[in-house]
Amino acid sequence: MAVVKACKILITGANRGLGLEIVKQLSENSCPKQHIFATCRDPDGPKSEALRELVKKHPSAITIIRLESANKVGSLLGNNGLNLLVNNAAIVANGTIQTSSVEDMKNTFNTNVIGPLLIIREYLPYLQMAAKASGIPGMSSNKAAVINISTVAGSMTRMPSIYNQFPTLPYGVSKAGFNMLTVLAAEEFKADEILCMALHPGWVKTELGGDEATLEPKESVEGMLRVIGSLTEKQHGGFMDYSGETVTW
Amino acid sequence: MAVVKACKILITGANRGLGLEIVKQLSENSCPKQHIFATCRDPDGPKSEALRELVKKHPSAITIIRLESANKVGSLLGNNGLNLLVNNAAIVANGTIQTSSVEDMKNTFNTNVIGPLLIIREYLPYLQMAAKASGIPGMSSNKAAVINISTVAGSMTRMPSIYNQFPTLPYGVSKAGFNMLTVLAAEEFKADEILCMALHPGWVKTELGGDEATLEPKESVEGMLRVIGSLTEKQHGGFMDYSGETVTW
Repeated sequence: MAVVKACKILITGANRGLGLEIVKQLSENSCPKQHIFATCRDPDGPKSEALRELVKKHPSAITIIRLESANKVGSLLGNNGLNLLVNNAAIVANGTIQTSSVEDMKNTFNTNVIGPLLIIREYLPYLQMAAKASGIPGMSSNKAAVINISTVAGSMTRMPSIYNQFPTLPYGVSKAGFNMLTVLAAEEFKADEILCMALHPGWVKTELGGDEATLEPKESVEGMLRVIGSLTEKQHGGFMDYSGETVTW
Repeated sequence: MAVVKACKILITGANRGLGLEIVKQLSENSCPKQHIFATCRDPDGPKSEALRELVKKHPSAITIIRLESANKVGSLLGNNGLNLLVNNAAIVANGTIQTSSVEDMKNTFNTNVIGPLLIIREYLPYLQMAAKASGIPGMSSNKAAVINISTVAGSMTRMPSIYNQFPTLPYGVSKAGFNMLTVLAAEEFKADEILCMALHPGWVKTELGGDEATLEPKESVEGMLRVIGSLTEKQHGGFMDYSGETVTW
């Protein structure tokens, strides 16, 4: 397993589901230099209890950050910048052409597209810092990378065949926009050698994925970390799933 | 040239650019049974003067409709429903990861995705009526069709190579979402035999395309009408350009 060796890592939506599992697995394999910034909307609320418990186990490896406090992370990062940003936070909304509400269309777009755009913009100087500080040519998630947790529901070629079972039009539309954000960020980051790609976690038993899902969070995250750890410039601007297979747009 | 023989046609954003040219060319070839509903935001304003002039030439073939007055069209359509809906209205906004404003992200999404969703929903009963009334099996734009005017800027495979020249992130993200709306609408409309596909008009000299564009509106619209007139169920859920070439997502 290609271990994620990035030193400074930031994960959004880290208080539950896949985000929490990513923090958990990274903190278990953690090297002394590694530090995880786990962001969520309400670090003190009841929905973040599992994350707070995890921090008690690994107090020197994890810092919980309120989503809005990016400047706080900046001051904690130091001169080596941020190596790995995982845009994991997302919401789902159900609906069809007939039933999707305007509110759900707007909310999914705000959280799943505009949110990550602002996070990427906020941390770009720290990613650029890390890319420069590495002194190594090429791209990797240990050097400087943005991993966007996307979904096959955002794939024009894959979504139609699952849409009957998952009538989640607002979610699918927002994730297609998120995929475009990914390819354009990748285009912009080429010169800085910051890797950027989209990753489908599989259908996972989380609050978002539901009980009928086929994968446990553990298996999905093990796969995703293996993929993230093995990325090179060849996957820059691409779309893969947790098993390392390419997903068509 | 495969002429568009649809009887009842509705076009959004019909007061300028491609929308106006589509109305113009359709009204010139118009058969006696054909009627065009040309919708725009402000039918009485100065930006709709060219459309009003066109109606003076073909008063029995074109009715101008204020965007919000879908119910008015319903009462005018009668029992044969609506054959062809062209979602042409769109806005463009420039920006990169660094510079795209939240307002531009929201506005492009509202106009280019939520707008067409609401229009499609509004006219779906009339499209279903037309599909049933036709009595012909299969799909065609003469029977019942939704044509979504999209762009290669919404294609994950095509946008990166033009992004340097056209740093229009909010526009590209919204059009990727619009493409997803197209494939999901196509999935939902299969049973009703309502054709739905996305069409790239080329880079056209309009207010949106700018002066440096390579195509005149006339050429683009001639091509698009040729494509629209020749569509069958084989192109359902697809993405093509004005010359009839398939565009990859």
